[in-house]
Amino acid sequence: MWVASRFYYFAKDILKKAIRYPVNDKNPIWFGENAFSQLKTFIAKGDFSSIFFVVDENTHDLCLPYLLQSLGDLPRCEVLEVEAGEETKSPEVLVQLWMVMSELQADRHSLVINLGGGVITDLGGFLAGTYMRGLPFINIPTSLLAMVDASNGGKNGINLGHFKNRVGLFQNPEAVCVIPDFLETLPEEELRSGFAEMLKHGLIADAEYWKELAEFDMDEEVPTEEMIRRSIEIKQAVIDQDFREAGPRKVLNFGHTIGHAIESLSLKTENPLLHGEAIALGMIAETHISEKYAALSDAEAREIRSVLEQIYSDVHFLAKAEDLLELIQGDKKNKGDEFRFTLITQIGNGVVDVPISMEDVVEAMTLTKILA
Amino acid sequence: MWVASRFYYFAKDILKKAIRYPVNDKNPIWFGENAFSQLKTFIAKGDFSSIFFVVDENTHDLCLPYLLQSLGDLPRCEVLEVEAGEETKSPEVLVQLWMVMSELQADRHSLVINLGGGVITDLGGFLAGTYMRGLPFINIPTSLLAMVDASNGGKNGINLGHFKNRVGLFQNPEAVCVIPDFLETLPEEELRSGFAEMLKHGLIADAEYWKELAEFDMDEEVPTEEMIRRSIEIKQAVIDQDFREAGPRKVLNFGHTIGHAIESLSLKTENPLLHGEAIALGMIAETHISEKYAALSDAEAREIRSVLEQIYSDVHFLAKAEDLLELIQGDKKNKGDEFRFTLITQIGNGVVDVPISMEDVVEAMTLTKILA
Repeated sequence: MWVASRFYYFAKDILKKAIRYPVNDKNPIWFGENAFSQLKTFIAKGDFSSIFFVVDENTHDLCLPYLLQSLGDLPRCEVLEVEAGEETKSPEVLVQLWMVMSELQADRHSLVINLGGGVITDLGGFLAGTYMRGLPFINIPTSLLAMVDASNGGKNGINLGHFKNRVGLFQNPEAVCVIPDFLETLPEEELRSGFAEMLKHGLIADAEYWKELAEFDMDEEVPTEEMIRRSIEIKQAVIDQDFREAGPRKVLNFGHTIGHAIESLSLKTENPLLHGEAIALGMIAETHISEKYAALSDAEAREIRSVLEQIYSDVHFLAKAEDLLELIQGDKKNKGDEFRFTLITQIGNGVVDVPISMEDVVEAMTLTKILA
Repeated sequence: MWVASRFYYFAKDILKKAIRYPVNDKNPIWFGENAFSQLKTFIAKGDFSSIFFVVDENTHDLCLPYLLQSLGDLPRCEVLEVEAGEETKSPEVLVQLWMVMSELQADRHSLVINLGGGVITDLGGFLAGTYMRGLPFINIPTSLLAMVDASNGGKNGINLGHFKNRVGLFQNPEAVCVIPDFLETLPEEELRSGFAEMLKHGLIADAEYWKELAEFDMDEEVPTEEMIRRSIEIKQAVIDQDFREAGPRKVLNFGHTIGHAIESLSLKTENPLLHGEAIALGMIAETHISEKYAALSDAEAREIRSVLEQIYSDVHFLAKAEDLLELIQGDKKNKGDEFRFTLITQIGNGVVDVPISMEDVVEAMTLTKILA
């Protein structure tokens, strides 16, 4: 039977109890209109010698002016602009930023503010967390994906070649500012990419939230502050139990074992998928696996796939099974040669560390129609 | 008066009370012959997929064979050898090591063992602390300086150009193994360099220990395990109160504000000083400042200088005042334009964050005969 003692059985009742409480005080999330005034107060109290903004060319043009205007008087500010895109999460860019901060005399009383999507919060968080053994930093996510996922939870880092997030830290920002207004700067496919992580939050922890999202019309509306807040609460509740991903935190990896492999391979093609698009395919495949290994009911499995296939109907990807398997094996979530997956037992309840045979991984990928 | 409320007054009684207890269990120090068996047990319990040894060419030849022989059966081992010397603590070497570990498939179940002096434990600790967001690591210091200082206390990092330790982490090793046998591989001047940090420990926290060290004949003997243990206990007691150097930990910087400036400049000359040699000169200068600003008695000041001048009688250094002052100002321990020093009020008691005028810094450097 699939519930062996070495798996973490992620009881939804425990999680639900945890997420009734608001996000913890130590690493607050400030929302919407309040966020600017709370950030202003934080900066005033902090007596910082200087502020270093990490931005890309998009957030430099579209978001930074609005932010600076909203914040008013500030200490000395420096703007570190990097190129938008995943390639920026590299050792070369990191080392350059270390050097520039040093030349610009960032000191132990400087503050770093990361303004951008996941690339910026990942890179900027690692930069801040290591410069002079750690400066305080604030994340201001500007993409839906970064709001509900990358900017909170304390993971940051860079890629080494095609190994994603191979180097980094667990280090919380002082605070995360979620400004839904910034979503209006985003193209539609970016919104849909972030939406995949929100759907995942429903699937692993909250059936009601899943239902709300499944009925939401992405073509007509932008996700509300309330929905974003719910996703962050779920993520935070998981992380509060397991900051360093010893066990329960892995529940957030649903859809990501196969999804990351798809994303990595697609990045080498001419039409790379967005993160959330790859994760949507990963969730479809891992829903198949959940039926076989986690007693997910046929009805719920069909419901999940139907919702995902409708929202991501134009997302297509084909690769060889051996290429996908090689990446899954190299994934840091796997120990040695075992395949271990995060699955769902029912909508709203995830389990982690379930060992899966290679044949069944291939079968799930076949059913998901991603094998060339 | 010098005892203003914003300084931390580092009461020796509090410190003494703290250091009566052995080094804490969470980050143990294993000494001498027991160290190998404790390390063997740790490795056996840890079920590691692989072990990565970080060494330089000296410890590779002189220490690694002995270590491997003592440890017996091990999981897959890989040896990462870097060049001995301060230049190795660079972003370039760090990035190379990240890449090599990735190529050699280090995973989240790998262990890193740093075998060497301060360069190795600083670099290897940062490497381990960031690879896959942190692997467990063990420090095995092979120099006296690393045993009593660099290998314990959780600071690690690399240099950026001439900025020492500009990038790094506060991250404790799982354990430190102190094997005094390794001291026999060291040249005499290296022993004397490490001895400076031991003298500092006496000066800031323990008059009795200072006395013992002052009477010790460095020409005839190698410091004992008991003495090394005492130094580590003092350092650990300070750090237990203030891991991230918000305040009290700065007491360990006695001699280092001017000493670091001397060290940096000397590294650009043909006869660079060793770290402890520069710190010895720094302590002489900062003893002058302590007389003026921290009510250190004339008799004790003369005693300190006489001991230091005798042990380090052949250590000479000359530089321009403005070059030294520029480095002191750029030092991360100073906020903005203020000069802030760690001083001693009497032998065995340090105080931190004392603001000093530039004129008095120059006067102290003049009295120490280091101004060209």
